[in-house]
Amino acid sequence: MTLDESNSNLSAVLYGAQDLRLEHRPIDDPKAHEVQINVKATGICGSDFHYYHKGRLGPRILEKPMILGHESCGIITRVGADVTDFQVGDRVVIEPGRACGQCQLCLQGRYNLCSKMKFSSSLMNGVNHGTLREYVCFPSYLCHRMPDSMTYEQGALIEPLAVAVHAVKRTPVKAGSSIIVIGAGPIGLLVAAVAYAQGVSSCLVMDIDQTRLDFAQQYLPGIKTELLPTPPTTDALAWAEQQAVLLQLSADTIDVVFECTGAETSICLAMHTVRRGGVVMLIGMGTVQCVMPIDLISTREIDIKGNFRYAQAHQEAIALVALGQVSTEGLVTHQFALNQAVEAFEQAKQSSHVIKILITC
Amino acid sequence: MTLDESNSNLSAVLYGAQDLRLEHRPIDDPKAHEVQINVKATGICGSDFHYYHKGRLGPRILEKPMILGHESCGIITRVGADVTDFQVGDRVVIEPGRACGQCQLCLQGRYNLCSKMKFSSSLMNGVNHGTLREYVCFPSYLCHRMPDSMTYEQGALIEPLAVAVHAVKRTPVKAGSSIIVIGAGPIGLLVAAVAYAQGVSSCLVMDIDQTRLDFAQQYLPGIKTELLPTPPTTDALAWAEQQAVLLQLSADTIDVVFECTGAETSICLAMHTVRRGGVVMLIGMGTVQCVMPIDLISTREIDIKGNFRYAQAHQEAIALVALGQVSTEGLVTHQFALNQAVEAFEQAKQSSHVIKILITC
Amino acid sequence: MTLDESNSNLSAVLYGAQDLRLEHRPIDDPKAHEVQINVKATGICGSDFHYYHKGRLGPRILEKPMILGHESCGIITRVGADVTDFQVGDRVVIEPGRACGQCQLCLQGRYNLCSKMKFSSSLMNGVNHGTLREYVCFPSYLCHRMPDSMTYEQGALIEPLAVAVHAVKRTPVKAGSSIIVIGAGPIGLLVAAVAYAQGVSSCLVMDIDQTRLDFAQQYLPGIKTELLPTPPTTDALAWAEQQAVLLQLSADTIDVVFECTGAETSICLAMHTVRRGGVVMLIGMGTVQCVMPIDLISTREIDIKGNFRYAQAHQEAIALVALGQVSTEGLVTHQFALNQAVEAFEQAKQSSHVIKILITC
Amino acid sequence: MTLDESNSNLSAVLYGAQDLRLEHRPIDDPKAHEVQINVKATGICGSDFHYYHKGRLGPRILEKPMILGHESCGIITRVGADVTDFQVGDRVVIEPGRACGQCQLCLQGRYNLCSKMKFSSSLMNGVNHGTLREYVCFPSYLCHRMPDSMTYEQGALIEPLAVAVHAVKRTPVKAGSSIIVIGAGPIGLLVAAVAYAQGVSSCLVMDIDQTRLDFAQQYLPGIKTELLPTPPTTDALAWAEQQAVLLQLSADTIDVVFECTGAETSICLAMHTVRRGGVVMLIGMGTVQCVMPIDLISTREIDIKGNFRYAQAHQEAIALVALGQVSTEGLVTHQFALNQAVEAFEQAKQSSHVIKILITC
Repeated sequence: MTLDESNSNLSAVLYGAQDLRLEHRPIDDPKAHEVQINVKATGICGSDFHYYHKGRLGPRILEKPMILGHESCGIITRVGADVTDFQVGDRVVIEPGRACGQCQLCLQGRYNLCSKMKFSSSLMNGVNHGTLREYVCFPSYLCHRMPDSMTYEQGALIEPLAVAVHAVKRTPVKAGSSIIVIGAGPIGLLVAAVAYAQGVSSCLVMDIDQTRLDFAQQYLPGIKTELLPTPPTTDALAWAEQQAVLLQLSADTIDVVFECTGAETSICLAMHTVRRGGVVMLIGMGTVQCVMPIDLISTREIDIKGNFRYAQAHQEAIALVALGQVSTEGLVTHQFALNQAVEAFEQAKQSSHVIKILITC
Repeated sequence: MTLDESNSNLSAVLYGAQDLRLEHRPIDDPKAHEVQINVKATGICGSDFHYYHKGRLGPRILEKPMILGHESCGIITRVGADVTDFQVGDRVVIEPGRACGQCQLCLQGRYNLCSKMKFSSSLMNGVNHGTLREYVCFPSYLCHRMPDSMTYEQGALIEPLAVAVHAVKRTPVKAGSSIIVIGAGPIGLLVAAVAYAQGVSSCLVMDIDQTRLDFAQQYLPGIKTELLPTPPTTDALAWAEQQAVLLQLSADTIDVVFECTGAETSICLAMHTVRRGGVVMLIGMGTVQCVMPIDLISTREIDIKGNFRYAQAHQEAIALVALGQVSTEGLVTHQFALNQAVEAFEQAKQSSHVIKILITC
Repeated sequence: MTLDESNSNLSAVLYGAQDLRLEHRPIDDPKAHEVQINVKATGICGSDFHYYHKGRLGPRILEKPMILGHESCGIITRVGADVTDFQVGDRVVIEPGRACGQCQLCLQGRYNLCSKMKFSSSLMNGVNHGTLREYVCFPSYLCHRMPDSMTYEQGALIEPLAVAVHAVKRTPVKAGSSIIVIGAGPIGLLVAAVAYAQGVSSCLVMDIDQTRLDFAQQYLPGIKTELLPTPPTTDALAWAEQQAVLLQLSADTIDVVFECTGAETSICLAMHTVRRGGVVMLIGMGTVQCVMPIDLISTREIDIKGNFRYAQAHQEAIALVALGQVSTEGLVTHQFALNQAVEAFEQAKQSSHVIKILITC
Repeated sequence: MTLDESNSNLSAVLYGAQDLRLEHRPIDDPKAHEVQINVKATGICGSDFHYYHKGRLGPRILEKPMILGHESCGIITRVGADVTDFQVGDRVVIEPGRACGQCQLCLQGRYNLCSKMKFSSSLMNGVNHGTLREYVCFPSYLCHRMPDSMTYEQGALIEPLAVAVHAVKRTPVKAGSSIIVIGAGPIGLLVAAVAYAQGVSSCLVMDIDQTRLDFAQQYLPGIKTELLPTPPTTDALAWAEQQAVLLQLSADTIDVVFECTGAETSICLAMHTVRRGGVVMLIGMGTVQCVMPIDLISTREIDIKGNFRYAQAHQEAIALVALGQVSTEGLVTHQFALNQAVEAFEQAKQSSHVIKILITC
């Protein structure tokens, strides 16, 4: 039996809130431009967890079964007729979004914003099955070669790292910059790590959870950390302004603030701590509306940007890990086999001590 | 008597809210790097009007007398010892902000954000006397030569036009772009005119005042206009989302929205009408806090930028007028002599029919 | 008979140097993502003319018959099954290059540099038949809607105008810039026109042919022109340096020089006339090697850029013509019917009085 | 005796080719905006060496005595009346160029191109005495604070490192990029080190001297090196094209080539090894004219840029060293005391084994 003749394709299929089932699904043949990949490791993303937990992600409600997962890497088991750049046995990280390639945004290189995007384990433009299965097919141009030195564990971290790379490279962070990262979850840590790799002189990570800050300090010894008090439920703006003064951060020193929580108080704090002409990058999601100190945007020419996934970021992410400029040490806090997928998603409910949960084949 | 031997320097000095006095002040000698200018025409800016009307501008309160005015042009009457690029008799537009030239922001070319900026007729960094007087001295590098074809009336419009140039050039507006301008006051009109000069394919100007829209249509025949209903005092966000649907503007067609009112409802409308990956440029001032649809910033990667005056924009502004790419036809709706300065500021209270009031010597 | 039932497809097929034959070829059916276009007008490009005249273009030698033409517009006669954005009867400009859409350069938005590009009437990546025929099929995303006001004559000029748009937008030309255009052929004129539409304050067009300069002056009344002496065959560098001094152009005034001839002397002249920190954009082709004043590149930080076709430029080009910001008046100096294609190419040998030759159906 | 009461100011003054004299010169008082610095370490730059060796640098001929040196750091001994950001005892790196601060290039942030620049130990705009003396005064905004962890030896390397930082940041080098550096002298090594700090995946350093390559390999273990054969004196272009093929570098893999030799053959090799849409950064100086494969610039849209000193680069350079992202290990191969300045310059004649010579006080 060769690698591609397996007739089992164990898959983690979500049927509704907290109803994840392991099923054997058929193995797809690769189309002419595709490769077939035996998935080796997949990280659980916050969006996967939300679908699992609530049966929905924001306005998108699961109505038909969907295979979860999109932070994956694996080994190529078959190549389509027209594929020339990969061979069976090549190890690759999967970039899990298929854009149309023809709209204005795609032609400009901003394919992450393509309105026809089919992104694995999401409900935008139909049910897009994910990668939490043994075998999956992808167009070869969405596969990125893993260096020999890279483990599958590292490979599965490339997708969230690509988010951080995309976020950082859309800001003017450079050697000597001073930055703040609000939120010490997986994305906050990776953003700090990528910024650190650019040579930032000062990086202050803030969170309301000391356990997370302790981990951040261990992961990136050069950073400073600041435990924020539990923010109020009203008057985010006044609280943010006070905090900025208390923390002595209202001077013109912070070039870029990365907001990785999505909380209104954090967004306001970002605005009050960034320097004139600085950039606030919003990465955290979840909040639909938010009060903002709008006068600062114009009188101080602060740019507010948002981040949605990534475009052209995987190869940078792979390079940063392969060269050791971004460490992956300690980021994977829990591992499960594919047939333990339900346990894996249940574990994800304990947020403080979880950085990244991996599901391996 | 030669031009520079006058010993009178009639000046419009503000002593408090609605207490503007005409006084004879001494004529300054130009320092080595300065030129002395006989001011010929000065436009009344919104900030001058606020100082006049309220005796303050936002948090800055007038405590000592200040000469108003900063939208000025004139003719050089004396040159300092080290000035080589100008002669007596040259006609110039004044760029009225003196930055420090040595801080990080100045060295980066963003001198409009210099924290040591001394801007004429403002209270930032002390009382900075303005240009509403017969003679004023400025460093020669802040003087921009007027082409022979340019009138003083046009020259006085260059400063507000520079604001519009600065705002437009910090966006990706180009030939073929589709834009919205919210607010048909002087800045909104000039922004639309500058964008038009870049070859935008579609420009929709919105306002709640039909008189202003009628003027806009006459000033820029190629634009479309839309009368907005009076916005509600609560729930700006829901109103904005509804308006965007009603106006059929929620599709991905508008590249850039210029918000020139500062109203919360307008800012929300801007967010709901711009395309994925588009830019909202906030130019209108006055609002301190504002609810924003924050999820759109991240999921659609909308950039929010603010505009504060200008840097390196006067020569572009002069070129646009000199080449006829930006018309000044009809923008000056009222003219007064310097000794009628009080009447001029009183006229400014009638906003609907006023575009720009000029005070001439 | 409906529009799409014609069974004739008269085509201008090149068999070798100066061996152009008119043949009836089959009409292609549009594939699912394609539209079928009845070509109405096609301009003759310099590359078409080189293929016709020499049977080759640089290193690429014609070995099999090829249909010429790629500057075309027409009317849609059929739409493929998956096409939703166009209908039969829509008038479109064709963008004649099919890139792979998946390589790094495509994903970055620089698809004009795609190494798998199949460009109509070129021999790169095989024989790519052109548009000098009655009916041709193209993917719908390469078709750009013509405004109602645009004539087919204008539509056929959009492709070369897109070259000029691409060249200008990759430089820092803006309102108030001072530029030089060397070479008053079709591309030089269009580059000057596009730059003019950006509001350049000063545009000097140079050529060695007074007839061309006279036409340039008539086409763009605001420009200045300069007749260059016939350049020497040796020591281009010394000649260029002398010319720059003679023409009083060696001061730091010219922001960008567009070199549209490809001649060594002109390239050197460009280097000697641009200011510190300025840009020389090389558009003219043909020269393989060239002596350059290399010290100026480093000591004056002059950027040398080259231009190869265009990416994302057609809609800007269409907008500039539709708004009247770029005039097409007088650019088409000769017109022929498709069955006179040989006469059209023979006419192209008379360079001085020819700007653009059009072949219409 | 306090630090500033010394009445001796030993200075290394160049009187002509190879006529360097040590003299006692008066100690300047700092002007209001200046600080007085006790210079602790100064590196010998190639330009200092050229002045010493030939009594000229290119077209600029030494006619009056000039103090050499501009790669310096030291400790502040006095502060002018208006200086608020430094105190006596602060350790600083000197940025040795005084720009006018008022011309268009200065206002754009490109002050390194200011035509009125007075750069230490250069003859542009008069005799500008350098820093090879015990005490020198500089405006405080040209002084950059040294972190406590930084040695004076490192401090003296910041100026050449700033050249490398400026060169790298004007290219699109980023994590995952593939680059070539031609020339393994001090600037080539620093450019490679800065690029490496950005996370380049592949860095190939070329030279014709194996000793230099051996040092490069030791300094940056991750790079690859390539010994180039001695280039021919004629037909640089053909040689370069052949080398690119021989070295298997003519595919589309190299994003940026940094040319740090100034040799015609190297410049041509750079052009033949960079990918479509890539950048060739010319840093090496000395060659006045050069044959270039001009067709590659246009058909492959290769950008050629030059590098002249730096602007806004010192703080990035300091950050890179302070964080250990750029190592200075081994770069200073020779040290001399100020009273051995002549010996130091004589040592500089032995190029192969010399990376950087330091003169300390």
